[in-house]
Amino acid sequence: MATITIDWQPDKAAAVPIYQQITNYFQHQIARGDWPMGAQLPSQRKLADQFGVNRSTLITALEELSAVGLITSNPGSGMVVSGNHWSSLLAEHVDWTKYVKAGQFKPNSHALQKINQFETDAVIRLSTGEPAPEQFPRALFKRAFAHLGQNLTSLNYTEPAGILALRQQIARHLQKVGIQTQPANILITSGSLQALQLVSVSLFPKNATIYTEAPTYVKSLHVFQSAHTRLAGVPMDDQGMAYWQMTPPTPDQHAIIYSIPTFNNPTGIVMSATRRQQLLQYAQEHRLPILEDAAYQDVWFDHQPPQPLKANDTSGNVIYFGSISKSLAPGLRIGWTVASQPVIDRLTDVRMQTDYGASSLSQLVLAEILADPDYETYQAHFRTVLAAKAARAQAILTHYWGDFATWQAPSGGFYLWVRLADWINIPKLFDLATAQNVLFNPGSIYDFQPNQYVRLSFSYESSERFERGIQILTRLIKANFHP
Amino acid sequence: MATITIDWQPDKAAAVPIYQQITNYFQHQIARGDWPMGAQLPSQRKLADQFGVNRSTLITALEELSAVGLITSNPGSGMVVSGNHWSSLLAEHVDWTKYVKAGQFKPNSHALQKINQFETDAVIRLSTGEPAPEQFPRALFKRAFAHLGQNLTSLNYTEPAGILALRQQIARHLQKVGIQTQPANILITSGSLQALQLVSVSLFPKNATIYTEAPTYVKSLHVFQSAHTRLAGVPMDDQGMAYWQMTPPTPDQHAIIYSIPTFNNPTGIVMSATRRQQLLQYAQEHRLPILEDAAYQDVWFDHQPPQPLKANDTSGNVIYFGSISKSLAPGLRIGWTVASQPVIDRLTDVRMQTDYGASSLSQLVLAEILADPDYETYQAHFRTVLAAKAARAQAILTHYWGDFATWQAPSGGFYLWVRLADWINIPKLFDLATAQNVLFNPGSIYDFQPNQYVRLSFSYESSERFERGIQILTRLIKANFHP
Repeated sequence: MATITIDWQPDKAAAVPIYQQITNYFQHQIARGDWPMGAQLPSQRKLADQFGVNRSTLITALEELSAVGLITSNPGSGMVVSGNHWSSLLAEHVDWTKYVKAGQFKPNSHALQKINQFETDAVIRLSTGEPAPEQFPRALFKRAFAHLGQNLTSLNYTEPAGILALRQQIARHLQKVGIQTQPANILITSGSLQALQLVSVSLFPKNATIYTEAPTYVKSLHVFQSAHTRLAGVPMDDQGMAYWQMTPPTPDQHAIIYSIPTFNNPTGIVMSATRRQQLLQYAQEHRLPILEDAAYQDVWFDHQPPQPLKANDTSGNVIYFGSISKSLAPGLRIGWTVASQPVIDRLTDVRMQTDYGASSLSQLVLAEILADPDYETYQAHFRTVLAAKAARAQAILTHYWGDFATWQAPSGGFYLWVRLADWINIPKLFDLATAQNVLFNPGSIYDFQPNQYVRLSFSYESSERFERGIQILTRLIKANFHP
Repeated sequence: MATITIDWQPDKAAAVPIYQQITNYFQHQIARGDWPMGAQLPSQRKLADQFGVNRSTLITALEELSAVGLITSNPGSGMVVSGNHWSSLLAEHVDWTKYVKAGQFKPNSHALQKINQFETDAVIRLSTGEPAPEQFPRALFKRAFAHLGQNLTSLNYTEPAGILALRQQIARHLQKVGIQTQPANILITSGSLQALQLVSVSLFPKNATIYTEAPTYVKSLHVFQSAHTRLAGVPMDDQGMAYWQMTPPTPDQHAIIYSIPTFNNPTGIVMSATRRQQLLQYAQEHRLPILEDAAYQDVWFDHQPPQPLKANDTSGNVIYFGSISKSLAPGLRIGWTVASQPVIDRLTDVRMQTDYGASSLSQLVLAEILADPDYETYQAHFRTVLAAKAARAQAILTHYWGDFATWQAPSGGFYLWVRLADWINIPKLFDLATAQNVLFNPGSIYDFQPNQYVRLSFSYESSERFERGIQILTRLIKANFHP
């Protein structure tokens, strides 16, 4: 079969990364059938010349195309188009993996994929935002299982918004942080990622602007992008989101604020009580709804953080997302959304069309555990252990990295947000570290631009293993980079 | 505030239902801010005159607008615009609740909403496609809980595709129906509705054509519509989908077949072994992927149905969806997708961006139960009870409805697909029945056109309650309709 001829070139001025433009172009040609199956591609050298790009950019694109099965490389015969009907369909699922035009930022998809892939078998996981398995409260669960074993008489679909007993427990739980609500204003979701997902597809018009702290939670960025929104990063100071730096939306523009006011992920910054009041007022003046992500609300060290925005929301402006993933067990896959009634009703309706509700079993077990008088004791112990691990992690960092790293001591959450000296190439360090089975999260995946940060989780691994991970990273830094 | 002036009229020739056009128009005006909050609407009579529609159409539209909070009706002062920034966002979530242009059919949204709303408190649920609570195998669950209570040491996120032990059990389970597969080709989802959802957003290009049996599973229709696909109903004969009646797709058109070959929901039709072979061959010749929905695979009465399409799929053409919702417990929210590796990888990736996996707890419990030697005994007993309920339900129908109803005896599944005589107005019967707290599913919600069918579930309610429901319906039919 004849070799393909190419007369296209990527647009180097465009916001879309070059390799992504190349991938898109190939996908388009193959999906349209312009390049039939079995057609021979020009050599890598010729392709790089034609596109005016360097080999490494080209190879990134070719690897991605190969990963989705659109091209294959045969020793001897070079690369051929191998897209079949499935893979060319795959190629057109534009909404999800393609990084959208929101030109402001370029998430590091390569790093993210590696993290997802390695997360389950990596030897030392400084990347993992989960409670340590050692902190799992076996006794609480054992009691809940025993109780259910005695009393469970069926396991059918639940009420659309979630099991009432659980929503009651959550309403009670939220009172402790100052949120007065009732079961009718609560929707149970499969973790708070699903809640964000539901809100995005149910409440965001296309091209809505999402104002969000920069840096912020990487997975929410993906969800927002998939909903075709425009992301606008807002800088933070040590009091939280510097909202006055937003360009206010025009009256006919739909805009929403997404914030993690308490133990922002990844920075650990806690929005002060004053800033919370100011932000609420600003949002109300500009008719900006707020999505408050409170995933880390309960994982403070020594003193409770300021009340959630939702606690002082008098206008119904705030949609609050809570989760049990950080303070108990992510494997339950349970989160909750608190909002005004029409919002909850709408989300519930969409939710029923998506997956028909969260696991009834998870809901029942969590309702048992939240009602258990020992839950408070467990929480207090969990926090004490976490605080000790945070202190120990910082002592380790000071010891090994004192010369080239800086960070703010966190007062809660799971992470150290560490700035490394400029002479350390973080993408390269990331690749070197994964080769040694040490995983950390490069700061760039949280941000709207490259930066010199890494996010280290002190929560998941024991302090001993945290130290071993830092030792390996230290060795890699010293061997490969120099001031 | 001044009354709104309207100079627009619905397009009666358009495929979009009139009431929907009116709803869209209101949403648009309010979202744009053309009609400010508090603005007074003209009276219902004036609106109906202006639009040139009858009152009932207008009221359908106004009820929908009122339900999403865009308008409120104040006694004395008539209707006013009450949309705020949330509700006008709600109004623009075009993808989800709006019934898409796929002009071929008009799902009965009114009936569906009522069913969802009443489903949990209705007195007699002849609509419910779930196993009877009495059939819940308490002993199996109790044993699984006890085992987990002893052995569970953490409950974190699982492998992206689902817990390996569960995928192994499912691979073993699938061997019994002739599917040879391995854990790497299996993705665990939160029920099979989520699997359909994932496939839709991951693999369907916009405007792909979905060929599907008519009638078919109503919730899948919604999922497909939300993915902006075009639905094309294919008639069935007693051997299953009459695939030769499809208009074959043109070469540049993406098209997919969605089929429930075993105990089609709602009709109960089982595709014959010969037809399965023919359909596979047809699909391969036309390069049409097949989505095989096997939710009812395990709920046969006297003899096992023909092997799934997937068992004889030599080309990787078939994506198979299984579920535990019909044969064990829908509240676990566990389903599985079996497909070729690139498809599983892609779905897994999208899935991780959506909700980060199914409940680990549900997965662990199900893995325990599938591995329990008593599971087979439970299944056999479940089928015997179900078959007896099906027989009893038919005896009841023959007794009460023998004069005006016909149906085919099912050989598995949960439903009787009953044709009522033409003189019975089914939408009216539905409304009368819900007022008496009896729920059934009108056949029109499964079809691409109005029809004279109702779907009655004999699975959920006891035979005594089934009979009581039929007695009430009989009374309503005799009092309100006449040959």
